[in-house]
Amino acid sequence: MDALDTDSKIYKIRHSLAHVLAQAVQQKYPKAKLGFGPPIENGFYYDFDFGDSVISEGDLKEFEKSMRKIINQGQAFERMDGDFAQANEILAKHADEPYKQENLKNLHERGAKNFSFYKNGSFMDVCEGPHVANSKELPADAFKLDRIAGAYWLGDDKRPMLTRIYALAFETKEELQDYMKRRELAATFDHKKLGKELELFHFDDQVGKGLPLWLPAGAAIRNSIERYAEELEFKYGYQRVATPHISKGTLYEKSGHIPAYLDSMFPPMQVNEGTGSEEKKADYYLKPMNCPHHHMIYAARPRSYRELPLRLAEYGTVYRYEQSGELSGLIRVRGMSMNDAHIYLRPDQFVAEFKSILEMYREFYSTFKLSEFKCRLSVSGKDNAEKFKGEAEMWRDAEKLLEDGVKESGFEYYRGEGEAAFYGPKVDFQFRNLMGREETVSTIQVDFLMPKNFDLTYVDDHGQLQKPIIIHRAPLSTHERFISFLIEYYGGAFPTWCAPVQVCFIPVNELATEYARGLERDLRQHQVRIEIDDSDNSFNKKIRTNTKRKIPILVIVGDKEVENKEVTLRRYGIEAQETIGCESFKSILLEEIKDRNMLREPMTSLI
Amino acid sequence: MDALDTDSKIYKIRHSLAHVLAQAVQQKYPKAKLGFGPPIENGFYYDFDFGDSVISEGDLKEFEKSMRKIINQGQAFERMDGDFAQANEILAKHADEPYKQENLKNLHERGAKNFSFYKNGSFMDVCEGPHVANSKELPADAFKLDRIAGAYWLGDDKRPMLTRIYALAFETKEELQDYMKRRELAATFDHKKLGKELELFHFDDQVGKGLPLWLPAGAAIRNSIERYAEELEFKYGYQRVATPHISKGTLYEKSGHIPAYLDSMFPPMQVNEGTGSEEKKADYYLKPMNCPHHHMIYAARPRSYRELPLRLAEYGTVYRYEQSGELSGLIRVRGMSMNDAHIYLRPDQFVAEFKSILEMYREFYSTFKLSEFKCRLSVSGKDNAEKFKGEAEMWRDAEKLLEDGVKESGFEYYRGEGEAAFYGPKVDFQFRNLMGREETVSTIQVDFLMPKNFDLTYVDDHGQLQKPIIIHRAPLSTHERFISFLIEYYGGAFPTWCAPVQVCFIPVNELATEYARGLERDLRQHQVRIEIDDSDNSFNKKIRTNTKRKIPILVIVGDKEVENKEVTLRRYGIEAQETIGCESFKSILLEEIKDRNMLREPMTSLI
Repeated sequence: MDALDTDSKIYKIRHSLAHVLAQAVQQKYPKAKLGFGPPIENGFYYDFDFGDSVISEGDLKEFEKSMRKIINQGQAFERMDGDFAQANEILAKHADEPYKQENLKNLHERGAKNFSFYKNGSFMDVCEGPHVANSKELPADAFKLDRIAGAYWLGDDKRPMLTRIYALAFETKEELQDYMKRRELAATFDHKKLGKELELFHFDDQVGKGLPLWLPAGAAIRNSIERYAEELEFKYGYQRVATPHISKGTLYEKSGHIPAYLDSMFPPMQVNEGTGSEEKKADYYLKPMNCPHHHMIYAARPRSYRELPLRLAEYGTVYRYEQSGELSGLIRVRGMSMNDAHIYLRPDQFVAEFKSILEMYREFYSTFKLSEFKCRLSVSGKDNAEKFKGEAEMWRDAEKLLEDGVKESGFEYYRGEGEAAFYGPKVDFQFRNLMGREETVSTIQVDFLMPKNFDLTYVDDHGQLQKPIIIHRAPLSTHERFISFLIEYYGGAFPTWCAPVQVCFIPVNELATEYARGLERDLRQHQVRIEIDDSDNSFNKKIRTNTKRKIPILVIVGDKEVENKEVTLRRYGIEAQETIGCESFKSILLEEIKDRNMLREPMTSLI
Repeated sequence: MDALDTDSKIYKIRHSLAHVLAQAVQQKYPKAKLGFGPPIENGFYYDFDFGDSVISEGDLKEFEKSMRKIINQGQAFERMDGDFAQANEILAKHADEPYKQENLKNLHERGAKNFSFYKNGSFMDVCEGPHVANSKELPADAFKLDRIAGAYWLGDDKRPMLTRIYALAFETKEELQDYMKRRELAATFDHKKLGKELELFHFDDQVGKGLPLWLPAGAAIRNSIERYAEELEFKYGYQRVATPHISKGTLYEKSGHIPAYLDSMFPPMQVNEGTGSEEKKADYYLKPMNCPHHHMIYAARPRSYRELPLRLAEYGTVYRYEQSGELSGLIRVRGMSMNDAHIYLRPDQFVAEFKSILEMYREFYSTFKLSEFKCRLSVSGKDNAEKFKGEAEMWRDAEKLLEDGVKESGFEYYRGEGEAAFYGPKVDFQFRNLMGREETVSTIQVDFLMPKNFDLTYVDDHGQLQKPIIIHRAPLSTHERFISFLIEYYGGAFPTWCAPVQVCFIPVNELATEYARGLERDLRQHQVRIEIDDSDNSFNKKIRTNTKRKIPILVIVGDKEVENKEVTLRRYGIEAQETIGCESFKSILLEEIKDRNMLREPMTSLI
């Protein structure tokens, strides 16, 4: 379903519905003049000049009704063609439409020779089509006039402001409903909105655009995830390194990022490298990725084949210069932290290592309950030898190995011809966000080029120098993007192990508060992020407030609990309460955190 | 003992010994011409022009012997004074000393009117003194001619190259021996040397000067320490945040770091902040400290008195522009990571919070077995009102509270008058490095100024806006400086909990290797950093190699161990071996790591 594919059924539906809307509008407002009315993603719009009439969202229902009537009339869509003179004549005869006339003239001046019209019922429009054959083909229950906005004619703020009516339109009622439900969820769970409500992060223009300040609650999520990444890496034989956030430009010249990537880098800092009075200027850059720094660590001393695979991992923060207009919440930022690693290996280790990486990704996704994704095998494609650098045979072999590996892993996949990186083929893990838009979250990339550029070698078992292969991998995207994804996926209700506040005690009286404090002290020793709500609020308000904070476990303590050494648990998103012994609560909680269990489905998996 | 205090005994001794050295040299080489011969830290030097004669380190013993003879002769040091003409006459009559003559002339040209000479025995020198009265006062067993170096006359590479003889000199033999022992240790345990041998960190000029790349072993130390800091902070009620490494300049103008601190900051990056085609330039800087970012988090929303103290902590990396010539290993770098925190509190919370911070410092130091330090209470001092910004009374009160707190803590302390920061008094924790040089490792600073500059407030219990006090604290310095200190303090042999490799198995045969692998798998599950030496090396070589790597625990496994389900432990720096059951080893090891026990004294505490 591609809104921009003019041959698609949905394009015709949306385009035809736009004409039907214009017809309905002019039935009620005969003097309304028409601007443009194209199909767009999820629907269409039409621009009108209502003259002195003022319309409001309230009018939309009536227009919808008229549209359904028109649809039921079974109007045929007919096409007419003509040259500029004919077109002008047709238009002038049909109606007084100054915007349409101006558009015709503009098209003509830009060299257009032939023009087409579409007519349905009494309505006619200058239009390239295509359309449905008859209005009866239009799904009367799968569209909705959505909202009104102002829009300048031709986007020019010196020309009249027209009234734009936006509409949603799909092939079926179910699609429309699904879209509207998703949109509602997306608004409720929007990471920018929840980020503010749950105090996860904050942007301040004095610090700079696209540079998130992670508040305590957000930092707790980051740290929990990062801790998990560290543990899993340890299990898979990775070694952590730490490298600076800046480097001399020479490093990026070597890697080829300068000049290729220069536009996405922050501008340089010119530093004096001379000693004493000697002046020696050097350009330093914020690092846009960690790779070159890791390559320098690999190159810090001679390497033996016995050391490989060498898996260097870093929780690194990188900076990329995104245009101000592109910045959006945590999804598009200028500073981003990532759990990044580079694996240096011998060709004979490739299959096993790739398998091991896929296994690691599977573990990650399973913990986060992420199951809806596809692998895109991004390969060079045919006849792309120029674009992709390296020997054809090497590429072909690697692409085959990747494809075999992904196949064997059982992950759903498709090929992306010509989607490879310039230094090698890759596997991208494609997730859909709440609005159904596909995003690359994780990636595994094979690199033949950097070992050459950085002259990386190892001594093989015959004492000969060989070039290693490099695999770049980042299973959790950047923290910014991944956490913004999780916020929406979980609807802000994080599983206990990575929730900012894991447990909140709600004691009903003084005695219960004392009792709660004892439990709190004990659990804090085990690094549990815990609070006691000892505010002056009523019991019910405490429950409401802390539920709104989406704390995974509320622990209610009353006289009965104190007497029986028990606690009553109320878990977020789970109806039933549960009263259990203190010790049992403690061991259940600690195990849940340690094993990173997630006891309920993510909010949005209900869709 | 201050080498630069001309009235001190040690100054006179060193100065006089320099004359004695010159006399001894000219006894053997009558044609040797004299340059300068001043006292310096730990001794003195004298520059000679030996003409065609070549002297070597071998000559030094003979000079020392001659010097002792001269000392024994009981030569009196006599002073003579005169104007320029007289001085020239005296010098010309006494000897042909072209450098001394040139020096006289230079001094004269620079305006000197009166000149003094010191004579002892046959030797005479243009010299301001002071000296001992008689050579018998010089300690014949407390000096040592140390080494020879080349040095241009007047430091000018177009003038003759003279031969500089460096000497160590102290008041007593014990001091000399102590110094030499320290110096030997400092050379053995030099963090740059050990950092290379143990592969902890690496500098690469392509990345940039003063920008360490932390290799896996070094990163393991960093992460272990940082993990500990996180745990301790959690215990003391701190909350982690994460902030970007850059900010717009406006933030530093607000804090006053621009212009006051500008020279120590990296130059700005000029970024276009405009949207679309609009140009709007803004200067972005690498952050030289975390404070302003934390203040922006405090200011992100209104704060209530109930929320205070708010303790914001970050493991932040900051960048400072040190002159190239100042850079030295990890001690002086341009990029440094620190466990940093800012505490926002009400005045009535100050005493309790300061006490709690001191308690936390005590815990840190005790874990690291750091006991040799003093607190410097850095206060405004008298008549410094101009230099230090804020109300006098507030300062006086705070200084008293700090002093009371430090006193009560039992830490040894002294007052540093006029040593306060411009925004408030502070307590510095002064440690001595191997060479006895004092360094500030940790600091606790009170800040009255930033709450004003950043307009930070909280609503008190009467609904009134109040200014919080800020405490800055960094118990572990920067990781770079702290770890360089620890490397030398531990002689590279880190305690198990933060050692890069914690345990290395040395199995004696195939069967033992299998057995070791089982234990390894189990311990790796508990995140123990463990290795098996399954190289082809002989048993003894394996022991030697891994001891040289300073791995805290070597586990030897032979047939007997396999049979009895035991292991034999050899701990670094501890002579006796120990054979214990596997399960018992596991629980001892895990407890040692968890509790961060250090079973032996730091290498250098033996001094």
